[in-house]
Amino acid sequence: MSAHPRPPHQRLSLNQATIKYASLAEALDVARAAGYASFGAWREPVAEVGLARAVELVTASGLRLSSLCRAGFFTAPPGAARQAVLDDNRRAIDETAALAAAGAPGSRAVLVLVAGGLPEGDRDLVGARSRAAEAIAELAPVARAAGVTLAIEPMHPIFAADRGVVSTLGQALDLAELVGPEIGVVVDTYHVWWDPQLPAQLARAGASGRIASFQVCDWMTPLSADSLLSRGYMGDGHIDFAAITRMVTDAGYDGDIEVEIFRQEIWDAPYAEVAARAAAAFEATVAPSLP
Amino acid sequence: MSAHPRPPHQRLSLNQATIKYASLAEALDVARAAGYASFGAWREPVAEVGLARAVELVTASGLRLSSLCRAGFFTAPPGAARQAVLDDNRRAIDETAALAAAGAPGSRAVLVLVAGGLPEGDRDLVGARSRAAEAIAELAPVARAAGVTLAIEPMHPIFAADRGVVSTLGQALDLAELVGPEIGVVVDTYHVWWDPQLPAQLARAGASGRIASFQVCDWMTPLSADSLLSRGYMGDGHIDFAAITRMVTDAGYDGDIEVEIFRQEIWDAPYAEVAARAAAAFEATVAPSLP
Repeated sequence: MSAHPRPPHQRLSLNQATIKYASLAEALDVARAAGYASFGAWREPVAEVGLARAVELVTASGLRLSSLCRAGFFTAPPGAARQAVLDDNRRAIDETAALAAAGAPGSRAVLVLVAGGLPEGDRDLVGARSRAAEAIAELAPVARAAGVTLAIEPMHPIFAADRGVVSTLGQALDLAELVGPEIGVVVDTYHVWWDPQLPAQLARAGASGRIASFQVCDWMTPLSADSLLSRGYMGDGHIDFAAITRMVTDAGYDGDIEVEIFRQEIWDAPYAEVAARAAAAFEATVAPSLP
Repeated sequence: MSAHPRPPHQRLSLNQATIKYASLAEALDVARAAGYASFGAWREPVAEVGLARAVELVTASGLRLSSLCRAGFFTAPPGAARQAVLDDNRRAIDETAALAAAGAPGSRAVLVLVAGGLPEGDRDLVGARSRAAEAIAELAPVARAAGVTLAIEPMHPIFAADRGVVSTLGQALDLAELVGPEIGVVVDTYHVWWDPQLPAQLARAGASGRIASFQVCDWMTPLSADSLLSRGYMGDGHIDFAAITRMVTDAGYDGDIEVEIFRQEIWDAPYAEVAARAAAAFEATVAPSLP
């Protein structure tokens, strides 16, 4: 690394998952030391220290909160397991409100929702998708009361079986429109870059003001053996960040942009190096297409 | 295996890729010995023996030809490489016509087209998709004159970067409609099962008579390290074959149904065992939903 790297773009947020093995305190320190203005939190490191301490850490960091990842996993059939999930989502809404209030001005009270996969032995994709819709509808008034935006994250179809049955931006928007005007969507380049309907659906998302989060990382080939980890720094793979950034901008999104990379080599690298490389990759690929 | 397995469903076709290491002669023998009435050929084993000999083998087998896999790979920029690809596709059209004429009555002169991925270092997905459309438009009159149906195969978005930039059935139909009424599409459960638009797009494909091939295999998790090989016998994974088979049937498709499984363990198993297991899996999952 150069001694004086250019400071990160001020809309860039370091998502905790990019430095997955850092504690919340470490991750906030890394982001601040690298010059980031914003941070995307994950629930597990928050839970490790407890919400009260996490709130203190976020406040002390001086960083904005860009989102909290993640809740959801809504596809269990009716019963105790589903009820437990809904209760956990209510807690996640409270956590989001508390952490966003603790962040610097401009913090976003956005809770990222992953739909969940097919239950074990269940092949009824339509049914699983319906249960996700019902769960979001049930949580919507809770989120509204807490001032939290629920943001549905469409996941790449590679995850439809085992992680997320909401597979396209169009489907996420259908679902959001079904539930209510306050439900948002997450645009994660890794999940949506391939979609021939992306231009039309981003415009649609923009027209209804539903883009609640924009996350960036690249699609790398050959795929990693664990395909969930087949992500990389922007510019290292196949995604046209200029095109997607322009579309998201044209759709009216002007909030923080999270770099969220799941990749073993990146997790294994020193945190400060990762933060600096992510900022440089953003500067080279995304920033030139921002207003 | 039982001594007298039930004969395969008469609409079931054994695709050569399921017993990838067999020669064309071996594969035809395996299919016939197992009681199949139809066979899906691949170009490489045909090329190994030469087209004239392949024609003799197909005729001698008494089997129908359900399709020839595969041509396409249309995304190279203009130049010699692209011209070579188009020439190769013209040869593939001739091969399809010859092999279908050699097959038993009811053979289908269907050539499966895979769009191809992004050229090395190229991130312009829209441009690559346009070049695929242009190539198909150029080949359409050649295919028409030869009595061959060009069948565009949408590939799972996992392959958008490196294998197939046509990612959904809807996109394949857009492309087919752009080119002409005689262009078909391939419905491969592995590639399309996750698509929330599948019911609508299958109905659309049926209304314009464009379903040229129906291929079945299951989506297995966890994904294989080589995710291309993450397929399995129908019933072993997450796909709802009853639902998809009913939709394809309701869309008016009444042709052969190919079992096409890419999976290392299956390739490594004795061919006859694979042919029998595929037939049994079809009987259990697809056949009950056929008229």
